[in-house]
Amino acid sequence: MREVCVLGVGLHKFGRFPEKSVEDMGRVAILNALDDAGIEFRDIEAAYCGRVYAGLMGAGLRVINEVGQTGIPIVNVEQACSSSSVALRLGYYAIGAGICDMALIVGFEKMERGMLRATSPANSYDELVGMSTPMAWYALEIRRHMEQYGTTAKQIAMVSVKSHRNGTLNPYAQYQQEMTLEQVLNSRMIADPITLYECSPTTDGASAAIICSREKAQKYTNSPIFIAGWAAGSPIYEKGKDYDELGIRLTEKLAKEAYERAGMGPGNMDVVQIHDAAASGEIQRFEALGFCNKGEGGRWVEEGRTEIGGEIPVNTDGGLLSRGHPVGATGLAQIAEVVWQLRGQAGKRQVAGKPKAGLCHNSGIGGVNITILKT
Amino acid sequence: MREVCVLGVGLHKFGRFPEKSVEDMGRVAILNALDDAGIEFRDIEAAYCGRVYAGLMGAGLRVINEVGQTGIPIVNVEQACSSSSVALRLGYYAIGAGICDMALIVGFEKMERGMLRATSPANSYDELVGMSTPMAWYALEIRRHMEQYGTTAKQIAMVSVKSHRNGTLNPYAQYQQEMTLEQVLNSRMIADPITLYECSPTTDGASAAIICSREKAQKYTNSPIFIAGWAAGSPIYEKGKDYDELGIRLTEKLAKEAYERAGMGPGNMDVVQIHDAAASGEIQRFEALGFCNKGEGGRWVEEGRTEIGGEIPVNTDGGLLSRGHPVGATGLAQIAEVVWQLRGQAGKRQVAGKPKAGLCHNSGIGGVNITILKT
Repeated sequence: MREVCVLGVGLHKFGRFPEKSVEDMGRVAILNALDDAGIEFRDIEAAYCGRVYAGLMGAGLRVINEVGQTGIPIVNVEQACSSSSVALRLGYYAIGAGICDMALIVGFEKMERGMLRATSPANSYDELVGMSTPMAWYALEIRRHMEQYGTTAKQIAMVSVKSHRNGTLNPYAQYQQEMTLEQVLNSRMIADPITLYECSPTTDGASAAIICSREKAQKYTNSPIFIAGWAAGSPIYEKGKDYDELGIRLTEKLAKEAYERAGMGPGNMDVVQIHDAAASGEIQRFEALGFCNKGEGGRWVEEGRTEIGGEIPVNTDGGLLSRGHPVGATGLAQIAEVVWQLRGQAGKRQVAGKPKAGLCHNSGIGGVNITILKT
Repeated sequence: MREVCVLGVGLHKFGRFPEKSVEDMGRVAILNALDDAGIEFRDIEAAYCGRVYAGLMGAGLRVINEVGQTGIPIVNVEQACSSSSVALRLGYYAIGAGICDMALIVGFEKMERGMLRATSPANSYDELVGMSTPMAWYALEIRRHMEQYGTTAKQIAMVSVKSHRNGTLNPYAQYQQEMTLEQVLNSRMIADPITLYECSPTTDGASAAIICSREKAQKYTNSPIFIAGWAAGSPIYEKGKDYDELGIRLTEKLAKEAYERAGMGPGNMDVVQIHDAAASGEIQRFEALGFCNKGEGGRWVEEGRTEIGGEIPVNTDGGLLSRGHPVGATGLAQIAEVVWQLRGQAGKRQVAGKPKAGLCHNSGIGGVNITILKT
């Protein structure tokens, strides 16, 4: 399998854009990525699009036709909140296999108010017991964690405070205002202990990346960013193990796989993006990804060790909580942030000391995707 | 890139099953494919699912969990009527790249009455001029063909008569009754000249295939079926060329690519599956795939040369018209039919003379997929 690089990335600002279509936003993200890569649309040989709500029947074609028509195959992937990470992985396989040399990956979404409230199939067991929103799952997980390890409501809220502070440094973020600990803790309770401001918002937005073979990248840049490792999988319910830790166990397993493929460990990661659909999720995934021992995640946040200036900066762009979470577009926004950080182009939120490797953790209903990038 | 084989195929009967879920039907197709391949679910390393209407958020996981939970990554693809062909192609890339050795491909669908009636985005140009159903496009194409080449309404109807005759030989087909020329011609007009019985029906169903590397296949069979060639692309509107021939031009271009990859030509194809969403479409795609000169397709049908006993048997399983068209499941049903034909396992509809290669043409809104299989 050939080595694969991320040659360019681009975003359309995340936020609420009732006047814009996914075509409008997708076009901006794609043009930004093409510009960043220094290539033309005609150089693209295939496209992979991640979206959830953007319409059946060829949404990817409609978005990509905004930029050009060259007859390339266009694939639409739907993987809930990790759709564009999965799209990236599929493009990575194709380039790795030698099917093509240069591919466009796009994520886009327009979300109606409350769209992600109910995600379980009607009449499913999950729905019948009231577990029909992702926040109910996050609440179950973190309740046990609080019980077992003494993680506090304050520590959880501090994740959101950190994310919103980072969001003020990111011109693409949906929310660019700081939020106080009191504001987060006193906001409306959604699923105890998770409050409103500890939930990722509904968001419109688009993201894009250009990926290519190592050989191809050499024509355009002296410092490509490589896809060094990846892992993807689905949760397994194991008898005798806890249902509420399904996502954690999966993340632990996949993190090992991704580090092994990359020939690196958590200690090599200089910047990390974690799927913080709920603030509590960041704490537990930070542990599952091997950055600290189980039960210590809350203290790491409280001690500021996951801040941009800390030992392991997490969600430097504001994460899902502040940058926003337009489901189909989220995965590539994580990739864009790590690419910018590794190139030293992250502006006011740049991690110090020339970061050399970063990890993106993106999860969707029924699956987790991990991508490790390196210089 | 490594060689890739189809090791097993399986279907759930196509038809109307109001009492069944996609999980029910998908399970049957998967178990049949596993059985056909002679492997266990635990041998599967990745899954690619094609579906359109089967629900957002991890429909593939729900279907595959019916058979087993091993934590494999599961990808959901939505490519309109060619969803499961695209899923197959993505699995083919992954195995070709060496990402995994054995993958499951699944297509499934439950369709509501009239689901495919309107496929254009609201307020799009296509909708505003009344081109909001696929049949309107097929009608435009064939009207010109009738004008230019003298193709007749009778020839178009004979495609449907042939398909329904083939359907009587296929226990998986939605319709297993013959239909007379008069019945087809006298059925309700849908989009002049296309009548009701020249349109593919709405259908429930599921299809599955197991694909693997050549090395892996050798452990299970002495006569694997190889994926010999493929092509995929999107239509290009070229100024000065005719809008109503977009799909035809694309098919002509991709057929050349697929034959070149396979190192074969149309003369090597012993059995052919064509996307006959409308009967007229089969005639024009038969030409575009290089099986006869442009304008001769109608005569080929009239002269019986595309019958099971003819020179180039087309849609031996009844095609979309009679086997049915559960959009996400259609592509793999074509693959299953060609695999059975190449193995000599097609029962009463077996093509004579030990067929060695076959072609599947599956198109969805915004794209065409061609797959060439060989012994």
